[in-house]
Amino acid sequence: MQRLVLTLLVAYCTLTGSVRAQDPLPSWNDGKSKQSIVAFVAKVTKAGSPDFVPPAERIATFDNDGTLWAEQPIYTQFAFAFDRVKALAPKHPEWKDQEPFAALLKGDMKGALAGGEKALFEVLIATHAGTTTEEFAGIVKDWLATARHPVTKRPYTEMVYQPMLELLAYLRANGFKTFIVSGGGIEFMRPWAETVYGIPPEQVIGSSIKTKFELRDGRPVLVRLPELNFLDDKAGKPVGIQQHIGRRPIAAFGNSDGDLEMLQWTAAGAGPRFCLFVHHTDEAREWAYDRTSHIGKLDKGLDEAAAKGWTVVDMKQEWKGIYPPAK
Amino acid sequence: MQRLVLTLLVAYCTLTGSVRAQDPLPSWNDGKSKQSIVAFVAKVTKAGSPDFVPPAERIATFDNDGTLWAEQPIYTQFAFAFDRVKALAPKHPEWKDQEPFAALLKGDMKGALAGGEKALFEVLIATHAGTTTEEFAGIVKDWLATARHPVTKRPYTEMVYQPMLELLAYLRANGFKTFIVSGGGIEFMRPWAETVYGIPPEQVIGSSIKTKFELRDGRPVLVRLPELNFLDDKAGKPVGIQQHIGRRPIAAFGNSDGDLEMLQWTAAGAGPRFCLFVHHTDEAREWAYDRTSHIGKLDKGLDEAAAKGWTVVDMKQEWKGIYPPAK
Repeated sequence: MQRLVLTLLVAYCTLTGSVRAQDPLPSWNDGKSKQSIVAFVAKVTKAGSPDFVPPAERIATFDNDGTLWAEQPIYTQFAFAFDRVKALAPKHPEWKDQEPFAALLKGDMKGALAGGEKALFEVLIATHAGTTTEEFAGIVKDWLATARHPVTKRPYTEMVYQPMLELLAYLRANGFKTFIVSGGGIEFMRPWAETVYGIPPEQVIGSSIKTKFELRDGRPVLVRLPELNFLDDKAGKPVGIQQHIGRRPIAAFGNSDGDLEMLQWTAAGAGPRFCLFVHHTDEAREWAYDRTSHIGKLDKGLDEAAAKGWTVVDMKQEWKGIYPPAK
Repeated sequence: MQRLVLTLLVAYCTLTGSVRAQDPLPSWNDGKSKQSIVAFVAKVTKAGSPDFVPPAERIATFDNDGTLWAEQPIYTQFAFAFDRVKALAPKHPEWKDQEPFAALLKGDMKGALAGGEKALFEVLIATHAGTTTEEFAGIVKDWLATARHPVTKRPYTEMVYQPMLELLAYLRANGFKTFIVSGGGIEFMRPWAETVYGIPPEQVIGSSIKTKFELRDGRPVLVRLPELNFLDDKAGKPVGIQQHIGRRPIAAFGNSDGDLEMLQWTAAGAGPRFCLFVHHTDEAREWAYDRTSHIGKLDKGLDEAAAKGWTVVDMKQEWKGIYPPAK
C-alpha cells in the first residue's frame, strides 16, 4: 500500500513537471520577441520581486485588425459593409443612382472608393445603423457563418493569427485580463470575440455609433442611430482605454501607426511595461506591408519602437505558423 | 494513526458544514427581499436546471447614489464640487461676482441652486475639467480622506450600506460579475470603488466629460475637457450598459426613477431575471423619501415594481443595520 502511494506520488509529480515544461507559445520561434514576452511575464508575476504587478493591474490591450486577425486585402468590416449594401439594395431603389452605392452594386470597388473617407463613412452608417443592437448582432453572426475571405476562401473567423491566440491564452494563464482596443466597430466584434479569442463582450473596446433606448409596444430596445459616437483609433485609443478600463495597461499590442498612441500611453506608466508591434513581413504566407501601405500603415511606429526598444515581431522569421488549422 | 486521520476528517467536514451554513446576508432580516434574492441566486446557479445561467452571463448592475451609499442631504459628488469651488476660488477672482459661484463662496446654498440645472452643470464642469485624469483621481482621493458627511460626521466612504456590501460579496461568491451603473461621474467613483465595494475600475460605468490625449513634453496625458461626453441616467443607463458591457444584465439594483430604464432593460431579457429597488423608509437610521423627493425620487418605479412583481426593500423593516461599523 505504501509503495502504491509512493508510485502515484512520483507519477503525479512527473506529470505536473511535464505539464509545466510544455511550451505555452508553440507557434513562436525561439527568437527575440518570444524571449522578451516570456521575460516580461516572468518578471511581473514573480511574487516578492520589485517588478511584481498584482493580478488586478495586469491589463493587456490588443488591437484587432492586423494584430489578431488579417486585414488584407481590405478590413473585414468593410467586406461586411459592402455585402450589406447588396443585401439591403432591394429596400433602397434610390441607391442605383447614388454614389458610392451605385458603384458598389455594380461591383466597381475602385469607383466606390473614389469618394474617399466621406463615401466610406456613408456606406458604414447606411449598413450599421437602423437596427436594434440585438438585430445587428444577429446580422453579423449570420454573415460570418457564410462569408469567405477573398484570397484564402476561409471563414474570416479562421483568419486569426495562431501565435496571437497562444499569446492571449498565455497572458490569461498568468493572471492578465485581455482587452481588444480596435478602430473597428465594437458591436461588430462582440458577437464572435468570446468564441474566437476568449475575450468577453465587456472587454471589447471599439468605435461606435450612438444608440437610443426606446419602448416598442412596451418592449425595451436599443436602436442604432446614424451618428458617430466614438472613433477608437490613434489618439482615440487611450481615450477609449480610460473610458472603458479606467486603468492604464501594462502591456499593449498593435501593428500600425493607429496603435502608436495606445503604446505610448502604456509605455509611459510607472513600473514594468511591454509594447509590441506585429510587423507584416511575410509576403508568402500572409502579406508584407508597412511604411507605405494604405491599410495598416506602420511608419512612425517602427521608428518609435526602435528608439524606445519596443518589441517588433518579424512574422516571417518568428512565427512558425500564421493561421490555426482549418476546422 | 488511522484514528487521527478519521478525527481530522470529521473535524474538516464539520468545519465545512458550519462554513456553508453561515448566513451570507447577516444584515438582512429574513423577510421577502432576502428570500427573493437567495431564491434567485439558487435558481440561476443550479447546474442542470432549466434556469441555470453560465457564470459569464451572470451580470449584475448596481446604481450607486441611494443604492450602495447615502445620497442625502445632497449627492456626495455635489458636496465635492462645492468644496472644490472654495479650493479653486483663489485662482478664479472673477467668481466673486459671478453666479452661482459667488453664492457658493458665501455659503449661500439656496442662492447657488436658484440657477437650476444650468447653474449646477456650470459648477460641475468648472470643478471637474481642466486637469489630467491622473490629477483628478488624486484630487478625489485627497478630498475623501478628509471630507465628512454633514449629518453623521463620518467619511463618505463609510456612508455605504452594509446590507448591500454583503449582497455584492454574495453575488460575486456565486459567480456574478458586479458592475456600478450610476448617474454619478465615472472618474469620481473609480478611485475608491475597488477598495470600498470590491468593484474594479473597468466595472464602473457612469457619466463622463470628454477627454483628450496630448503629449506634454513628450509625456502622454489625458486632459479632462469642459464638455459633457455621456449622461448615464434614466434612458442613458441601458445605453451605458450596452456600451460598456455589451451584454444584458440578469439582475439590476436601483433606488429611484433614474434606474427604471435599467430595470426595464434587465427584466426584458429571456430567462430568469431579478430587479430590485431599495426603498428609503427609515427616517430614524437614514432618511425616508420616495414619490415627491427632489433627490432620488421613486414614483413610477414603485408602481412598475408592484405591477411587475419586482423586489422592493423596506429599509426600515428589512435591514438590521444601515452602515458598517466605524473604522
